Amino acid sequence: MAERFFASDNASPVHPAVMEALARANVGHAISYGDDQWTREAVAALKRVFGRRTSIHFVYNGTGANVVGIEAALASYNAVICTDVSHLHTDECGAPEKFTGAKLLAVASEDGKIDPEAILRELHVVGTEHHSQPRIVSITQSTELGTVYSTELVREIAGVCHKNDMLLHMDGARISNAAVACDSDIAGISGKLGVDVLSLGGTKNGLMFGEAIVLFSPRLEPAMKYIRKQGMQLASKMRFIAAQFRALFSTDLWVELAKNSNEMAGLLRTRLERIPGVEVVYPVEANAVFARLPAKAITSVQDEIFFYVWDHSQSIVRLMCSWDTTESDVEALVQAVESGVA
Amino acid sequence: MAERFFASDNASPVHPAVMEALARANVGHAISYGDDQWTREAVAALKRVFGRRTSIHFVYNGTGANVVGIEAALASYNAVICTDVSHLHTDECGAPEKFTGAKLLAVASEDGKIDPEAILRELHVVGTEHHSQPRIVSITQSTELGTVYSTELVREIAGVCHKNDMLLHMDGARISNAAVACDSDIAGISGKLGVDVLSLGGTKNGLMFGEAIVLFSPRLEPAMKYIRKQGMQLASKMRFIAAQFRALFSTDLWVELAKNSNEMAGLLRTRLERIPGVEVVYPVEANAVFARLPAKAITSVQDEIFFYVWDHSQSIVRLMCSWDTTESDVEALVQAVESGVA
Amino acid sequence: MAERFFASDNASPVHPAVMEALARANVGHAISYGDDQWTREAVAALKRVFGRRTSIHFVYNGTGANVVGIEAALASYNAVICTDVSHLHTDECGAPEKFTGAKLLAVASEDGKIDPEAILRELHVVGTEHHSQPRIVSITQSTELGTVYSTELVREIAGVCHKNDMLLHMDGARISNAAVACDSDIAGISGKLGVDVLSLGGTKNGLMFGEAIVLFSPRLEPAMKYIRKQGMQLASKMRFIAAQFRALFSTDLWVELAKNSNEMAGLLRTRLERIPGVEVVYPVEANAVFARLPAKAITSVQDEIFFYVWDHSQSIVRLMCSWDTTESDVEALVQAVESGVA
Amino acid sequence: MAERFFASDNASPVHPAVMEALARANVGHAISYGDDQWTREAVAALKRVFGRRTSIHFVYNGTGANVVGIEAALASYNAVICTDVSHLHTDECGAPEKFTGAKLLAVASEDGKIDPEAILRELHVVGTEHHSQPRIVSITQSTELGTVYSTELVREIAGVCHKNDMLLHMDGARISNAAVACDSDIAGISGKLGVDVLSLGGTKNGLMFGEAIVLFSPRLEPAMKYIRKQGMQLASKMRFIAAQFRALFSTDLWVELAKNSNEMAGLLRTRLERIPGVEVVYPVEANAVFARLPAKAITSVQDEIFFYVWDHSQSIVRLMCSWDTTESDVEALVQAVESGVA
Repeated sequence: MAERFFASDNASPVHPAVMEALARANVGHAISYGDDQWTREAVAALKRVFGRRTSIHFVYNGTGANVVGIEAALASYNAVICTDVSHLHTDECGAPEKFTGAKLLAVASEDGKIDPEAILRELHVVGTEHHSQPRIVSITQSTELGTVYSTELVREIAGVCHKNDMLLHMDGARISNAAVACDSDIAGISGKLGVDVLSLGGTKNGLMFGEAIVLFSPRLEPAMKYIRKQGMQLASKMRFIAAQFRALFSTDLWVELAKNSNEMAGLLRTRLERIPGVEVVYPVEANAVFARLPAKAITSVQDEIFFYVWDHSQSIVRLMCSWDTTESDVEALVQAVESGVA
Repeated sequence: MAERFFASDNASPVHPAVMEALARANVGHAISYGDDQWTREAVAALKRVFGRRTSIHFVYNGTGANVVGIEAALASYNAVICTDVSHLHTDECGAPEKFTGAKLLAVASEDGKIDPEAILRELHVVGTEHHSQPRIVSITQSTELGTVYSTELVREIAGVCHKNDMLLHMDGARISNAAVACDSDIAGISGKLGVDVLSLGGTKNGLMFGEAIVLFSPRLEPAMKYIRKQGMQLASKMRFIAAQFRALFSTDLWVELAKNSNEMAGLLRTRLERIPGVEVVYPVEANAVFARLPAKAITSVQDEIFFYVWDHSQSIVRLMCSWDTTESDVEALVQAVESGVA
Repeated sequence: MAERFFASDNASPVHPAVMEALARANVGHAISYGDDQWTREAVAALKRVFGRRTSIHFVYNGTGANVVGIEAALASYNAVICTDVSHLHTDECGAPEKFTGAKLLAVASEDGKIDPEAILRELHVVGTEHHSQPRIVSITQSTELGTVYSTELVREIAGVCHKNDMLLHMDGARISNAAVACDSDIAGISGKLGVDVLSLGGTKNGLMFGEAIVLFSPRLEPAMKYIRKQGMQLASKMRFIAAQFRALFSTDLWVELAKNSNEMAGLLRTRLERIPGVEVVYPVEANAVFARLPAKAITSVQDEIFFYVWDHSQSIVRLMCSWDTTESDVEALVQAVESGVA
Repeated sequence: MAERFFASDNASPVHPAVMEALARANVGHAISYGDDQWTREAVAALKRVFGRRTSIHFVYNGTGANVVGIEAALASYNAVICTDVSHLHTDECGAPEKFTGAKLLAVASEDGKIDPEAILRELHVVGTEHHSQPRIVSITQSTELGTVYSTELVREIAGVCHKNDMLLHMDGARISNAAVACDSDIAGISGKLGVDVLSLGGTKNGLMFGEAIVLFSPRLEPAMKYIRKQGMQLASKMRFIAAQFRALFSTDLWVELAKNSNEMAGLLRTRLERIPGVEVVYPVEANAVFARLPAKAITSVQDEIFFYVWDHSQSIVRLMCSWDTTESDVEALVQAVESGVA
C-alpha cells in the first residue's frame, strides 16, 4: 500500500512530525487569516532564519509564492528575466503573465542556470517605451534540472540585478536541497547573497501544503498583504500552514529531509552510471537525476515504478528523490532499469 | 487553552474525523495534482451527491472557488451581477476583477438576497458595446447576512438567468448551513434549482483547507483545469483536500456539523432577543446572528469573547456559530452581553 | 447633406481650424511616437496652460485617457471611487477593470456629482486586506448629466482625497464646457483645485481624434510612457494629435467652441421649458439638456432629428449641443418637439 | 523643410488623397462609434477585397489591431506562438500579455520567418494543465526583417495551425508591401491561404492613423465589438478612420504606394551592395534594407539623414523606405554612406 516512486518530491507524503504539528495546532478557535499564535510563532521562527528585517508571508503553493512574490516588485510594463526551463515560464500555465500582466523573457539556460551575460543582453531595451522593462531576474535553486547555483554565481547575478535597478527573485521550491548541497543554511544561499524575494518551499520537503514568501527588502512589504489576498493565496485557517513551517524550520528537520533526498539522488546516479546504455545528462547536485534511457526501457520501468519522461525526443527521464526515498527504493529502481535495458 | 469565540466559522478547528481522514491519506506516494485514488474517490462521492454529469474541481479556498468558478463562464467584457454585501464584491480585494477582467455590478440587497427585479434592471445594456455584458448572477447561500434563499426564489432567479442567456453562480461557502435550514440535501438547493456553478464550502464546516467547484454544465468543464492552474489553485498534494471532502460529504458529517452551528445561532438569537437594549437585525436562518448592541457593550464583551463589529456606525455586530460551538459557549456570550448592557 | 443632430458632441465634425492644422503638420517626415516638433510645441502650449511641472501625454480617445491616466496611480488591489453614472463605470465596457485590475466603487450621484460624504463612507475598509483599497476618486467635469462641479466642491473633494492618501482624477472629456460655465481657464478648475490627473478632452470640442492626459504630480510621470504604450494608446504619427491640440488650446478656440455649445444648450432649455408636457430634469450648466418628453413624442422627434433616449423607463432624453450647433438647429428641434407633444 | 529620412515608414506624412478623403468626410454630423455612412462604405469596400463573410473592425493603431485581434480567439490560459523578432513580442511593451493574459512563446526566426517545425515543437504541452495551451500562431507579413513569406509557406503554416486546433494571425502592418512583392492582392496572401485574423495596416502606407482587423472566421465576430471597446480601440468619430481606409483600398492607391517603397528599397540595396565595407544582411523583399555598416559610418550618416540602428553589437542598421521616398532620397543616403565609409 505504501507505494513509493520517483515521479516527484510532491508525490511524497507528509512527514510524521508535520502531521503531529498539525494535530497540536488543532485546538480551539484561532483568529483567521493569520492573526493567531501559531502564525506569530512560525513567522518568528523564520525571522530567526532569515533576519529580523525580512517579512514572511505564507501562501498555498509554489505558483502562488512565485507569482505573488514577483508581483510585489512588478508593474505590468515590466519584464521578468528567467530561464527557458524555469517553472515560472513553463509550468504555471501563464499564471505569472495573467496575474502580473508582465512579460517573461525566457533565456536559454545552461544546465538550468542563467548566465549573467544573458541577463545583460536583455537590457538594451531599458528606457524605451516600446519594450517591457526588465525589473526582476528569477532563478531557481536548486534548478529544474537538479543542479545548484554556486554562492558565487548567485552573488554575481544579484550584483548584475542591483547594478541595473532590478531585483533578484529565487524560486526556492527546493531550496532546502540546494542549501544542503551547499552545506549552508538557507539564508546563506539567498538573502545573504542579495536575493530580494524568496519563494520558500515546504511542500516538496515533507509538508502537506503551504509555501512562504520571504521578502528581504522592507520596501516590498506594505503592499504584500493586499497582493496575497487578491492573488487568492490568503488562507483562512492560516495556523495550519504556519504550524507546518514551524515544524520544518525551527529544528533541523528540513536538513534531515533534504539530505536524504539528495543522498538518494547521489546514490541513484552512481548506480545508474554503471549501467551500460544509461547516461546521466546533468550534474546531480540536489535530489533529481536526469538520465537518458533506451526508449524501450522507459515504458517497462514505468510500468513497475512510476516517473516522468522529461524529453520524449531525447529519451530523457526525470527521477526525483524525496525525503522518504530509501536505499531499497533506489535499488528497486536500478534493478528495474537493468532489466529494462537488458 | 481551547478557547472558542464567535468571530467566524473559519476560526474553528478541524473536526476529528477530518483529521483522521488526513492521517489515513498520508500513506506512501500519490501522483500529484489530483491523479490519485483519494481524489478519484472524493470526486465519485461528490458526484453521488450532485449527479453524474457534474464535474468537481478542488481548490484551496473560497475566493479561489468563486473566482475560478466564474471565470469558467466569463469573458472579460462580461459583468457579474451580485449584491452589495456579497463576499465576491466586498471581501476578495478585487480578485474577481483582477483575475477575470470583468466588472461586478453590485445591486442593493434585501437581507442579503438579490431581487430578481434588480437583475432585470441591469439588462438594458445587453447588446451595446459600451457596457459590460451581464453574463453571471452570483448569489450567496446562506447569505453574508445569515439569511437563506428559499428554493422558490433560487428557482426564480435561475429562470431569469437562463431566459437572459446568463448563468447562475452560487457562493456556497456556507451552503451546508443553508441546506440544513431548508431541510434539503445540497444538490436540492443548488443544481436541482438551476444553479450552474457552485462554490462548495468545506473550510467553514470543519475542514482544514479546501473548497470545491461544482460545475453543473458539462460545457464549462474542458477549460476548467487550465483556469484552476492559471488561478494558482491547483494543489500538488491534492489527496489531502480530497480526503477531507470525502470525509465530510460521503457521510452525514456535513449535516451534523451545520446543524449544530445553525442550532446554536438559533439559541443565541432567542437568548439575545430577551435582553433589553439588544436587537437582532436580520432573520436568523443559518449560523449567524447580527445584533445591535449598545456601543459601550461591544468593547466590553469583545474583551471577553471575540467577535467582529459588522457596522460601527450602526453598532451592529456579527456573531458566528461554528460546528463546535456549545450551549455553554452561547450562555457565556449571553452573560457577557447582559453584563455589558447593564 | 450637412445634417446636424443632438445625439452627441462627438457626432460633430472637425473644426476648420483643426483641419488646417492637420494639413500644416503634413509636411515631410517626422520621428514617430512623439519625438517631433509638433508634439514638442503642443506640449509646450499645454504646459503654458497647466503649469511647467505638469506632464502631458497624448492618447487616442477618452477611454484611453481615463484608463491610462488612473493606471499611473493604481495598483490592482486599489479601488476607484466614482459615481454610478460615470463614463468610467458605465460606458467603457469594463476597460478600467481589465486594464488596471482594480475595482470601481460606484456611489450614488446627485445630479451627476459625488458627495464628499459618500467618499468618506467608502474608507472604513482602509488597511484591511480583504477589501480593495481606495486610491483614486474620479469625478467628471462637466458631468455626464450636464451639470458642473463648483470650484468649491472640487477643492473640497480634493481635500478629502489628499487627507486620505488618495488622488483626484478628473474625467475632462467636456472640461472646456465646464471651464466656460465657471468662467475660468481649464487649469483653474483642475490642477489649481487639487486635481492630480486630468483627462483633457478634445474630440468632443472640435477635434478629429485625440485626448490628453495631464499629470499634475511629477511623481506619476516616469511610468506613464510605458503605461501608455502598453495601453495601446501610443500614436505612431503623433504629430497629428499634437497639431490638433495646439490648434485648440494655444488660442481661445476651445473657449469659442465650448461657449457656443453651452449657449445653445441654454437656449434649448429655455425653449423646451416653455413647452407644456416637457420637463427639463437636471440643471443645464454645460452643453447637455436632459428632458422628459411624452413617450409618443420621442419617436416622432427622433425620426426627424436624432438624439438618444437616456432612460426609457422615465421617458428622459439626452440632447447634446456641439460646437457647431446653431440657433436654427435648436429652433428646428424645438418645433419638432412641439409637434410631437401636440 | 520637407525633410525625409529612413527611420520608419510611419515617419512619413499622409498621402494627399487621404487628406482629401478626410476633408470630404468632414461634413455635418455622423452617428459616432461607426454607425455612419463612411464606415458602412469603407466596410463594404474592404469586404469586396476580403470576401463577404469576413468582418471588418477599425482600430487606432497596429498594437491595437494585433492585441484586440488575437484576443478574439484567446483564453488567458492560451499561448501565442510567434517569432523572437515579432513586433507582438518585442515592440508592444507587453500589451499582448496584459490585455489577453496569455503567454507569448517566442521561437527563433529565420530571416524573420517562423519555421513550421518550430511550431510543432511547441505542441508537446497540449492537454496538460501545467502549460499555457497554444492557440494562435502569429506571423508578420512582410516581416520585421523586411522579408516576405511565400504563399506556399503561409499555406503550410495555416495547415499546421488548423490541423492542431490553432488559428493563424497575420500582423499585416506592412501587408501591402508583401502583396506587391508577391504580385498578389491582399486577400490572396492572407484569407485565401488560411489566415484567420489579419491586422490590416494603413498607417505605414500613407494614412494618418487607423488600422483594421479583418476576421475571416464568422465565429470570431460576435465578441469583437466588446473586445474592441474594452481594448480602448473604439473611435468615436469613426468616419475619419473609415474614410482613410476607403481612400486607400477602394482604388489601387495601396499598390502604388507600397510599390514605391518596395522599389526604393530595392534600389537602395543595389546601390549599397556596391559600397565596399557595406553588407546587406537580409533578403530585401519589401521596403526595408538591413545593412551592416562600419561603426564609424553609422553616426556620421545619422547626423545627416536619420535612421535607426537595429543591432549595435553587430553594427546593423535598418533603413525603411516609405511611400514618399524618392530616388534622390536614396541617392542622398547612398552618398552619405559612401562618405561615411570612406
